Formats: sequence, structure tokens, C-alpha cells
Amino acid sequence: MAHKEFTYTRPIAYYETDAMGVVHHSNFIRMFEDARVAWLRERGVAQTHAPYSDVVYAVVDATCQYLKPLRFGDFAKVRMQAQGEGAKVRFRYAIYKNDSELSCTGTTLHVAIDKNFRITKPPTELVSVLKEEHWTEIWP
Amino acid sequence: MAHKEFTYTRPIAYYETDAMGVVHHSNFIRMFEDARVAWLRERGVAQTHAPYSDVVYAVVDATCQYLKPLRFGDFAKVRMQAQGEGAKVRFRYAIYKNDSELSCTGTTLHVAIDKNFRITKPPTELVSVLKEEHWTEIWP
Amino acid sequence: MAHKEFTYTRPIAYYETDAMGVVHHSNFIRMFEDARVAWLRERGVAQTHAPYSDVVYAVVDATCQYLKPLRFGDFAKVRMQAQGEGAKVRFRYAIYKNDSELSCTGTTLHVAIDKNFRITKPPTELVSVLKEEHWTEIWP
Amino acid sequence: MAHKEFTYTRPIAYYETDAMGVVHHSNFIRMFEDARVAWLRERGVAQTHAPYSDVVYAVVDATCQYLKPLRFGDFAKVRMQAQGEGAKVRFRYAIYKNDSELSCTGTTLHVAIDKNFRITKPPTELVSVLKEEHWTEIWP
Repeated sequence: MAHKEFTYTRPIAYYETDAMGVVHHSNFIRMFEDARVAWLRERGVAQTHAPYSDVVYAVVDATCQYLKPLRFGDFAKVRMQAQGEGAKVRFRYAIYKNDSELSCTGTTLHVAIDKNFRITKPPTELVSVLKEEHWTEIWP
Repeated sequence: MAHKEFTYTRPIAYYETDAMGVVHHSNFIRMFEDARVAWLRERGVAQTHAPYSDVVYAVVDATCQYLKPLRFGDFAKVRMQAQGEGAKVRFRYAIYKNDSELSCTGTTLHVAIDKNFRITKPPTELVSVLKEEHWTEIWP
Repeated sequence: MAHKEFTYTRPIAYYETDAMGVVHHSNFIRMFEDARVAWLRERGVAQTHAPYSDVVYAVVDATCQYLKPLRFGDFAKVRMQAQGEGAKVRFRYAIYKNDSELSCTGTTLHVAIDKNFRITKPPTELVSVLKEEHWTEIWP
Repeated sequence: MAHKEFTYTRPIAYYETDAMGVVHHSNFIRMFEDARVAWLRERGVAQTHAPYSDVVYAVVDATCQYLKPLRFGDFAKVRMQAQGEGAKVRFRYAIYKNDSELSCTGTTLHVAIDKNFRITKPPTELVSVLKEEHWTEIWP
């Protein structure tokens, strides 16, 4: 039984743009995080995010493919899916410009670490949540 | 006996610009901090900066007057002076565009706080350093 | 006849925090901007914001007083008021932590400039809007 | 005839850290850019960077593998190599913590675009530079 599709929408901030007039490419990685945090909040496990838990999921890998620039005045709609991969979890993202045009896709891979940044067992609340999540076949 | 004039120079990063083609106004506050950190390092008291000390100087007030925009390709030269004000310390800054034109001026006021964000006695190493510092009459 | 009180609320992003575990002081300046942009949008004059207009209001002065830290997990509620000062406009801000405790206050002063960053006459749509705005006596 | 190894070193800024006490993962993408810009400057072709040229190389893909956290007080040493791939150019990066421990690796892929964000022929100065560049077999 799949969770409902998750989307997160927010306006582009002016300080996210650069001298080409578009959102700087580093800020898409930040929008991925905004979506992950909103997803954790919706799933009721926001307390597992750093720095509120002794065990957190750290980012060990990130990728981003840029297709269409976003500008100030646009809204970014982030679709996101999660998938457990053993002790790891992989998220994938698709950001749309104003709900219609695909602006970028990307992924992040996370591993559970403790306060000393050593790999450890993931937080049980999140493991439970991840059992209900999976990537769909068709994406984006 | 006054300390020698302190200056800190660094290139403008592309990600610091915005869609007007100039450095976003929030980033001048960050350049002030870059200069403060370089100043602490030069004075040999970088270990008093958060998060490395139990007692640190937190920012309680910041001001910035914007005179001339900075662009990607420019170098920012930050002049800075410090002055003890009782248990507080006030820094003032003047940022120049490529060593010549005044781009902005500003100030920050800091108070010593402990790990619980309570006001406390300032770090003794910094107090010693501040005894040698003062604002010049002519500025900028 | 006064416009209704304007407030803008958004969650703190994780990337806005620093190694002290609190929102970095430069990011309050960015929250001021987020509130200004939301205010322009509500007033129906978002098109006067850079880079969409030939004449825009540039920031020439900013101040910020920090009272209480914000953390990841908090929501920032920004109250904001605008006031015309001749050809200039001054905004003032009060940011609350989770709707209750005052976290910071601040101001920004803006002047109208053209595409060449020369001072010019302000956009007429905004002048009309500003005629209806004023600072209240009691603040914050 | 290979160009000499390129490295770029700068201190970690305090505002680049997050509430875990380490550099936020999005900022490694920004350090990649800092290194690219320094590389362009050293090669004498900084004027081909946006927004100074009608034809620029836009980022279309970025990857980052995070191995070891960086903290305030650390210096990031970025090693970088460039390689032409037809009309595209791919950079790869290895960031070291204080010159010794590998902190992260990554890549960016760039295509030439014109002022209207349409794919176009790359700037000739950069094409000349890229003829002298190549990835080494051993990396990092």
C-alpha cells in the first residue's frame, strides 16, 4: 500500500538568484532538503532530523540534473519519493517550474550516523515509515 | 600603542550575486564576519570563536549602509576596527570595491554568552586583545 | 485608513542554521526580504521588485537587533510595516519565534534606482500603495 | 603536454556550517564553483564566466560524494581537473580537509549557452584552454 504522492511547493526567494537572473545551481540541493524536511514533518518523524536526534541520516551522495532555469517570481514544486536501500535511504526529486515544466531532477543518498559521525543503525521511527515508501516505476 | 590597521581581502563569489547582477545585501553581513574571523586569527585568538569556546561573543546588533554595488569579478577589501564597550565589543567595517571605491560601511555589536546563550563574562584572551584596540578618529 | 496588519510566516530551513545550532544572523536580513516580497505580492505590486522593473527600490541601509535565537524546527513569524519618507521607503520588521517570543527587530531603507543604479523617481504603483501605509505608534 | 595540477585553498566560513557543526552539503557545490572560477582566472579566461560573456558554460549536471565533514576552522583544499567532451566540458573535484584527508569528490558537466539559455558553440578562448587539459588516470 503506497503512500500518497508527496509534493512541496514554495516561492523562489530573490536571494536564491544569481547574476544570470536564475536560481543558482547550489540552491536546488537546498530545495531538495526543504522537501525532505516537509516530508518528515508530514510523516510525523521530523524529530529524527539533525540536530534533534542522536541518530540522524547524513547525506553521503547527491546528484542534480538541470533542465530549465527557475527565476524570481516562479514557484518551485518539488515532487519527492523515498526508498530504503538496506540501512541507507535514497530520495529522488523532480522540481517543476510553476507546476508544469520540469526544471530539475536529482537524488540524495543517506546513511544513519551517530553524534560522532560513525555509521550506526537507523532511527526506528524512520525505518517504519520507509517500509511504506517506494519509488514508482514511472518517473518523473 | 595601537595595533596596525587591519584589512581583509577576498574575491566576490558568483553565488553571492543576485538577479540585479550585484552582491546581495545580506552577503555584506557575511563579509563582515569573514573579516572578523581573519582578525581573530591574526590576533591569535581564533579559538574564542563559536563553536570552539564555552564563552563566545554573539552578535546582538548589526547595521549596514550600502553605497556602491559589488559585482562578480570584483575584490572586496574589508577594513575593520574593534573597540571594547564595557563587557561588549563593537566592530566597524568599511568595504572597498577593488581597493579604491567605498562600497559599504557597517557595525556589529557583540556580547559574551555561554553555551546556554546567557550573558556572561567575556573570554579573557579577547579582553586582553581588545585593550590594544580602538577606533580611529577618522573613519572611513 | 490603515491597511491591515501584515505578517508572513515560514519554517526555518536547516541550511539557515550554523554551528551554534541557531539561525545565522545574516539570514534574518533574508527573512526581512522574504516578508517584503510577500507584502508586495499581497499588495499586487510584485512586478516592481528587481529584476522585473526598470525602476526598483534598492536597499541602502539595514539594521537588525537580535534578541532570541531561532532554531531548526521553529517557525519565523515576520510582522512588517512600511512608511514612505519622501522618495524613500522604510520598512520595519519584528520576527517572532513560533508566534510568541520576539526574536529580532530591524529596519531597511530603500531608494528608487534605474537600471544603471542611478537614483530616480519611484515606481508609481508603489507610491500609490505607500500612501495607504504607515507605521503604527506602538511597535513591536 | 599536461597543465600543472590545479589546486585552490580557502578557509571554511562560519556561515557555511550548520547545526550539526559541519559544512552544509550544499556548500560543497559552491566550493566547486570557487575552484572553477579560480581556475578560469589562472588560465586567463575569467571573462568567459557568466555574466561577462554572451556565451557561457551553464551547469547541467552536478554530483557530490561526501566522505568526511569539514568544520569551521578547517581549510578546504580543492583539487580540480577539466576535460572537454565534445561541445561540453566536465570538471571533477576532490576536496581535502586541511590538505590531508579526503573530504569529498564530485563532478560538474557544463554546456555552452547564449543569453537566451539556448545551447550554442562554446567560447573559443575556453576551447583553446581545454585542448591542453585532461583528466589524469589516477584520481583522486
